[in-house]
Amino acid sequence: MKVEIINVGDELLIGQVINTNAAWMAEQLNLAGFMVNQFTVIGDNRQEILESLENAHLRSDIILMTGGIGPTKDDITKDALCQFFRTRLVFNQEAYENIERFFILRGIPVTNLNRKQAEIPEICNPIANKNGTASGMWFETEMAEREGKVIFISMPGVPFEMKAMLTDPVIPLLKKSFQSQAIVHRTIMTQGIGESFLSDIIESWEKQLPGNISLAYLPQPGIVRLRLTGTGPTEEPVRNQIAEEIVKLKKIIPEYIYGFDDESLEEIVGGLLTAMGSTLATAESCTGGYIAHLITSIPGSSGYFKGSVVAYSNEVKENELDVNPESLLKFGAVSEPVVREMATNIRRRFNVDFAIATSGIAGPAGGTAEKPVGTVWIAIATPTKVIAGKYLFGENRERNIRRTALQALNLLRKAIIYG
Amino acid sequence: MKVEIINVGDELLIGQVINTNAAWMAEQLNLAGFMVNQFTVIGDNRQEILESLENAHLRSDIILMTGGIGPTKDDITKDALCQFFRTRLVFNQEAYENIERFFILRGIPVTNLNRKQAEIPEICNPIANKNGTASGMWFETEMAEREGKVIFISMPGVPFEMKAMLTDPVIPLLKKSFQSQAIVHRTIMTQGIGESFLSDIIESWEKQLPGNISLAYLPQPGIVRLRLTGTGPTEEPVRNQIAEEIVKLKKIIPEYIYGFDDESLEEIVGGLLTAMGSTLATAESCTGGYIAHLITSIPGSSGYFKGSVVAYSNEVKENELDVNPESLLKFGAVSEPVVREMATNIRRRFNVDFAIATSGIAGPAGGTAEKPVGTVWIAIATPTKVIAGKYLFGENRERNIRRTALQALNLLRKAIIYG
Repeated sequence: MKVEIINVGDELLIGQVINTNAAWMAEQLNLAGFMVNQFTVIGDNRQEILESLENAHLRSDIILMTGGIGPTKDDITKDALCQFFRTRLVFNQEAYENIERFFILRGIPVTNLNRKQAEIPEICNPIANKNGTASGMWFETEMAEREGKVIFISMPGVPFEMKAMLTDPVIPLLKKSFQSQAIVHRTIMTQGIGESFLSDIIESWEKQLPGNISLAYLPQPGIVRLRLTGTGPTEEPVRNQIAEEIVKLKKIIPEYIYGFDDESLEEIVGGLLTAMGSTLATAESCTGGYIAHLITSIPGSSGYFKGSVVAYSNEVKENELDVNPESLLKFGAVSEPVVREMATNIRRRFNVDFAIATSGIAGPAGGTAEKPVGTVWIAIATPTKVIAGKYLFGENRERNIRRTALQALNLLRKAIIYG
Repeated sequence: MKVEIINVGDELLIGQVINTNAAWMAEQLNLAGFMVNQFTVIGDNRQEILESLENAHLRSDIILMTGGIGPTKDDITKDALCQFFRTRLVFNQEAYENIERFFILRGIPVTNLNRKQAEIPEICNPIANKNGTASGMWFETEMAEREGKVIFISMPGVPFEMKAMLTDPVIPLLKKSFQSQAIVHRTIMTQGIGESFLSDIIESWEKQLPGNISLAYLPQPGIVRLRLTGTGPTEEPVRNQIAEEIVKLKKIIPEYIYGFDDESLEEIVGGLLTAMGSTLATAESCTGGYIAHLITSIPGSSGYFKGSVVAYSNEVKENELDVNPESLLKFGAVSEPVVREMATNIRRRFNVDFAIATSGIAGPAGGTAEKPVGTVWIAIATPTKVIAGKYLFGENRERNIRRTALQALNLLRKAIIYG
């Protein structure tokens, strides 16, 4: 079965807006078991839309379109679809009721313009838009030029309207039409180990995975996501199989797994601190406030995060974090004694349960033979102890800051859980 | 003249990698005066490549391809191009010398595999790849099925290799082939005013722009970029015209213009502080370290940034920033007196020339009737005074943090420049 995506919108062709819709749609369709063969981006231009539909329906069985179905003049996808299917726009009661529901939920009266939006091509079925007034359209038809039915789905170009519509009902309907098998995914989030080292360590686990379960490595800077995908006649047994494999994996790499299904470390840590009623502060040198920023990007973080001292100069390390000037002189700012003092002292000064401290050389300048760019010390202070570790990251300033922050948050997570 | 882009790569169709190449290429081509009519993304599949080329060459005059020209087995674009043009791969001396130059510059010997990469379709000219070993290819040919010549350009899919190649020589060569006019762009960076207010204020300026100069609004959260594009027989006079229009604009909105051509506020502020030999610290409540993070994301920021106190709790505001407990009690943390004290005191404690302080309700919780979510106070302390301002941003936590940071950096910029 061939699937393709057509995104309509002049704004995409100017390059001002990156077409994130296509990648998101392809990922969701892939997760649901539908491989996408082609994306096409065209402008709000009748001739180009018609030509794309002509080409697409000869090679593909499912054609998903986005864009050009709004109420303004430059939105011409609906007209082009009428022309392609040799049909006409008619008022559709179901589409109207969907639109009405949207307004009623928001306590706004329906206008004539909105009523006009309930006009859709006669041969299609409307798809409810939970987040907007443009109705989606589902065409399912035999075509003269080819065998078998073709499904055309037209959705809004606004990402959050399209996303809600694709998630439900489009993908479930496609699964119902085309699939006999259930597909189950689970993503395991790991931090602190590179893709190649990780694959070495878990090689034998990977090899023993049942034939119906496959593994994909999805690396990001500082994080590797492991996605297990299982198939089977029904969902429940596959879900259980995957859960069993995760139990086995946890025994092999307990220290690297921090969460599941795209949870972030700052969410996980926030959840743990909230559950325990514990508090946190950070003392940051090389991360320059980035850890505090990650933590405070989570709503409700004021419940457990008291604050931070960003000590970018030695003077601030001495005055605000009570770091011993002799430690700085003898070992340098990027050293175990200094980072330990930073963690210990911020914990005491801010009167918190847990503290993170970082000191390193983010780059591009500041490296020496002994301490090259990418050298980082991290310390975690808990109610019972202070631990510290040295890391060698790379040469890229932005990545060094990011990797230091993720490493520090994962060390904190482990310190909270394992004491 | 019609231009289209074909991106080849299985990884793009899975949705794991967002096709940023197409948007970047379209923007660059647009800036150079070439409108793009279509993007197509296909997999590393001979049949799909051939079909795309077949369709493209009938409707477009310039076809830019990326991807699938590496040395591995799944890179089949070169073979598909040979088949499409009914030609064969031959060793190309110029391509070989380009590859050799790449290795010589890096002090690495050329291998047989690299020699193999100098084999390109007989009818094309090689395009030097400054950042890799895959040669670009330029086909310029009459086609039996249509009138006029068609240009096909095949480039690597690796973004930084493609970008260097498109910038030089591809776009200059296209301009030489197709354009008689010079095109000049200048982007004016503004902060602190929304797109619609801005367009009202500068309406009469916009109207008096010469006919050969056009204006585009490019809004981002907290920032609106104004891009002037001018055309003329030669570059110099157009450049001067644009400079004159910018002088006029500066008189209308001096307080909102902070820079040009995609400079960031943290870069501008860093440059000013460095030039003056001045120092900076921040006291952050609602921004939670984000301002410190922006500042320290700039290499060399340790030269002027001493650090920050992120005071997420009142306790830290009192203990580490010496905020008067009575101010907190009487006015609340989100108030002018508190933010003024924060700025004044961090400046003194950290012994710096300039200081930023922020206190606000980022949301989604914490709002009241009197101080709704999005209410923010910002203060700037300079060697001679403390200024403070109240802002009402929106309901989105992430955007409130971002907008507060940008506003604070621009206030600091103005305080540094205008005293």
